[in-house]
Amino acid sequence: MTNPIETRLKDLGLSLPDAPAPAANYVPWVRSGNLLHVSGQIATGPDGLILGKLGQDMDVEAGAAAAQRCALSLLAQVRAACDGDLTRLVRVVKLTGFVNSTGDFTDQPKVINGASDTMVEVLGDAGRHARSAVGAAALPFGVAVEIEGVFEIK
Amino acid sequence: MTNPIETRLKDLGLSLPDAPAPAANYVPWVRSGNLLHVSGQIATGPDGLILGKLGQDMDVEAGAAAAQRCALSLLAQVRAACDGDLTRLVRVVKLTGFVNSTGDFTDQPKVINGASDTMVEVLGDAGRHARSAVGAAALPFGVAVEIEGVFEIK
Amino acid sequence: MTNPIETRLKDLGLSLPDAPAPAANYVPWVRSGNLLHVSGQIATGPDGLILGKLGQDMDVEAGAAAAQRCALSLLAQVRAACDGDLTRLVRVVKLTGFVNSTGDFTDQPKVINGASDTMVEVLGDAGRHARSAVGAAALPFGVAVEIEGVFEIK
Repeated sequence: MTNPIETRLKDLGLSLPDAPAPAANYVPWVRSGNLLHVSGQIATGPDGLILGKLGQDMDVEAGAAAAQRCALSLLAQVRAACDGDLTRLVRVVKLTGFVNSTGDFTDQPKVINGASDTMVEVLGDAGRHARSAVGAAALPFGVAVEIEGVFEIK
Repeated sequence: MTNPIETRLKDLGLSLPDAPAPAANYVPWVRSGNLLHVSGQIATGPDGLILGKLGQDMDVEAGAAAAQRCALSLLAQVRAACDGDLTRLVRVVKLTGFVNSTGDFTDQPKVINGASDTMVEVLGDAGRHARSAVGAAALPFGVAVEIEGVFEIK
Repeated sequence: MTNPIETRLKDLGLSLPDAPAPAANYVPWVRSGNLLHVSGQIATGPDGLILGKLGQDMDVEAGAAAAQRCALSLLAQVRAACDGDLTRLVRVVKLTGFVNSTGDFTDQPKVINGASDTMVEVLGDAGRHARSAVGAAALPFGVAVEIEGVFEIK
């Protein structure tokens, strides 16, 4: 294995999940030119969906761990879009992070940092991205975090 | 009429609304290169705005019908951007669906399927798109659904 | 000073803030081709963050003023991305405005108009953009408005 990104993942003790398949009439990603739009990835761990609402029944640390899982799912989709070769990923362009939040929870940035930090740990400077982090009234199936992304690939 | 997409719409018993005009200092769509960004389309039926909050006073089926109306409005905008010729639409790249939700409503995907399914029914494979579906605390005028889109056109 | 946009800003009595630096492992903007994705800018005035929730403790007029501040922060980021020369901005492509809202606040468009109007006042036709305005259950630090943007630059 000489692919440096896969090596980096291993060094970090991380592994990408199988690229989750959406359960509807849409697809995990669409490429247009060099831009890859990846569908919102909902927080999923080894034991299934990561449910919770920040400000109610989940703390920031657990939220950030959920966001990391979303980042890994995004990278799994990018890898699939790149025929298995993540070195074709030029740059993470933009992440939009939705945090399942009560009306008075205000630490969305700390939660989404779980994804942002992972992107940079795995990809280095290519992982630095524009970002928004906002509170959602509710998310699919009650997951804690959903993150979508735009990526430049070659 | 030989335009296959218009024929398909007719076969499905669907018709596109007039491309709704925004009521503010913005525009329905902007093209940059081959990418077309279409403004968020709020659910509007023959009788006006489709109001409701999922988990409170609207069920999933009605929400999905509202999402279908958003999809038709999006296609109406794309058609306008393509000088009336929807065959210039190469691909629906990305839809972002906001569902007016209470804090415990978790079926956003089933609601937005009303739009996703319509895109594929009308456009075939070109209608398959990346997607996010999230819960919004509130939406303009109290509508049930708002959907924005990115499209590749030629 | 012959740069017409800077002159226009001055004529309007507006000035761009320093391009705010994000406080995390992400960056204010990423350019890919001619598209510039700018991170969500949270409402910040001369006295610091503009906190509030529409429908609860902030009215539409104050919300629109907060949205204007987001627009100025977005333009500050675009200027930084253009090496200080806003005349390299070809077009504001898309704004997505998140309004910190109670469940029954429905004037998100009027709030985000504070940003849309500013873009057109400052930039003229190049400022006309596609847009979405939605209600967020909560926003970072409790700010009233967060707006992200996509821009075409040369």
